[in-house]
Amino acid sequence: MTKNDDQLLYQHGTLGALVPGLFAGTQTLTELLRHGDTGIGTLDGLDGELIILAGQVYQVVANGQVRAIADTDAAKVPFANVHHAAFEPIGQVVADTQDAFAYVALKLLGTRNLFAAVQLHGTFGQVTTRAVAKQVPPYPTLTETAADQAVFTRKNVTGTLLGYYSPQLYAGMATPGFHLHFLSDAHDFGGHVLALGQVAGMLETQLFSDLQLHLPTKDTAFLQEDLDGDLLGDIAQAEH
Amino acid sequence: MTKNDDQLLYQHGTLGALVPGLFAGTQTLTELLRHGDTGIGTLDGLDGELIILAGQVYQVVANGQVRAIADTDAAKVPFANVHHAAFEPIGQVVADTQDAFAYVALKLLGTRNLFAAVQLHGTFGQVTTRAVAKQVPPYPTLTETAADQAVFTRKNVTGTLLGYYSPQLYAGMATPGFHLHFLSDAHDFGGHVLALGQVAGMLETQLFSDLQLHLPTKDTAFLQEDLDGDLLGDIAQAEH
Repeated sequence: MTKNDDQLLYQHGTLGALVPGLFAGTQTLTELLRHGDTGIGTLDGLDGELIILAGQVYQVVANGQVRAIADTDAAKVPFANVHHAAFEPIGQVVADTQDAFAYVALKLLGTRNLFAAVQLHGTFGQVTTRAVAKQVPPYPTLTETAADQAVFTRKNVTGTLLGYYSPQLYAGMATPGFHLHFLSDAHDFGGHVLALGQVAGMLETQLFSDLQLHLPTKDTAFLQEDLDGDLLGDIAQAEH
Repeated sequence: MTKNDDQLLYQHGTLGALVPGLFAGTQTLTELLRHGDTGIGTLDGLDGELIILAGQVYQVVANGQVRAIADTDAAKVPFANVHHAAFEPIGQVVADTQDAFAYVALKLLGTRNLFAAVQLHGTFGQVTTRAVAKQVPPYPTLTETAADQAVFTRKNVTGTLLGYYSPQLYAGMATPGFHLHFLSDAHDFGGHVLALGQVAGMLETQLFSDLQLHLPTKDTAFLQEDLDGDLLGDIAQAEH
C-alpha cells in the first residue's frame, strides 16, 4: 500500500448534484485531462458513458456505438473521475458475477477506507452494460434518466474493465463501492457495467492517498440547487 | 464568487473515522502547514482544539489555557483543515446567536453547495467554547469523548472567529454546516465554539473550488476500521 502513496484521484462534480438533474457539462475534457490520463465519466446531458484510456476519451452512446472524441475543447462533463495511471498488478481474479468480482477486488485492495482505481484487461465470458441517452433541458431526475437507458450484452469479449472504488462514507459525492465502465479492444462495445460473467485475469489497482474534489463554482444552477435532502437513496436506485 | 476560483481547502483525515475512536495523530503539523497557513483541527488523542492563524498553531487545552505550538515536527493531527488565507470582506454581520450568525453568513456566501472558510475579527459580546481533554488508548468513541469536555464562557472578548462551512452532502467527512473555532487576541481564551452572543463585524470569506481530502494510507487502524455503518447520527450528536 505504501508504494501508492501520494496518488491523487481527481473528480469534477459531485454525485449528489446529478440526483435532481444537474446534467449540464461544467468542465471541458481538455481541462479534465490535465488531471489524469485514465478515468470514467459522462458528457453534457448525461450523453453516454465515458472511458478514458491512455489520454484518449471514448464515448459509448445509447445506440451502443463507441466514438473516440477528438474535440476535447468542445465536449464538457458534468461528472467525471480521472487519475494518472500508475497501476500495479495485485493478484489474479476469477469471478462469475460482478458481486464476486467486487468481493475479490476488495479483498485484494486490503481496505474499504481508501479510494482506489481498478483495471482488468482480458477476455470476459459475458459483460452487460448500459448507456444513458442524452437528455435535454429541462432535465429529468437521475432516477428517471436511469429508466431511459439502453442495455447491451456481449459474450466472450476482450477488453478493459476500468473503474473506481469509493468508501461508503463519501456516498454523497461518489458511487459507494465499485463504479465500473468497460471498453472492448475492438472499440465496438462498452458502457457502464451492469453485470459480469466469467472474469479471469490479473487485477491492477492503484490506491489513492488524496481525493481532489473540484466543484463548478460558476454554474448558477449548481450553486442554487437544494442538495441538502436525503439523496443517498436516490443514488443507490439510479446507479444499479 | 469568481474571484475565489482555484482555491483549495485541504483536509487531513475524515470525520467519520473519529466516530468509532480513531484519534491517533496521523500527520505532523509540519506536513499539514505545507498545505495552508490558516485552519482548525485537533491533536493526537483529541488533545484540545487547534486554531491556525498566519502559520502559527495555537492549542486550546482542556484547562482553558492556550499554547502556541513550537515543535510542529512532534505534534500530529488525526483531523485538521487548512488553506492558504485569501479572505475577502463580504459584508457586515450583526447576530445575537450562533444560529443567527450561521444564517447571515450562509446568505452572504450565496450558496450552500461549496466549501468555504469564514473569519471574523472583532469584539464579541459572549463566546462559549469547549475544549476536549486528551484521550488515551484504548480510545472511547467520539460521542463518549464529547461528554468529557470543558466548557468556557467569556464576555466582551476581542478575538478571531475562524472556521469552515461544509455542504450537507459531505457529512461523512466534514461537519455539515459551520465548524467554528475561536482565539482571543490576548491568547487567554479559545476553543471549539458552542455558542455566540452579540456578534458584530465584517465577515471575511473564501469560497473553495477544490477540496483535497488526504487520508492516512499507512495507519493500519484506519485501513481496517469498519466505517460503513450509519455514522452521521453519531457525528451530529458529537459536534453540537
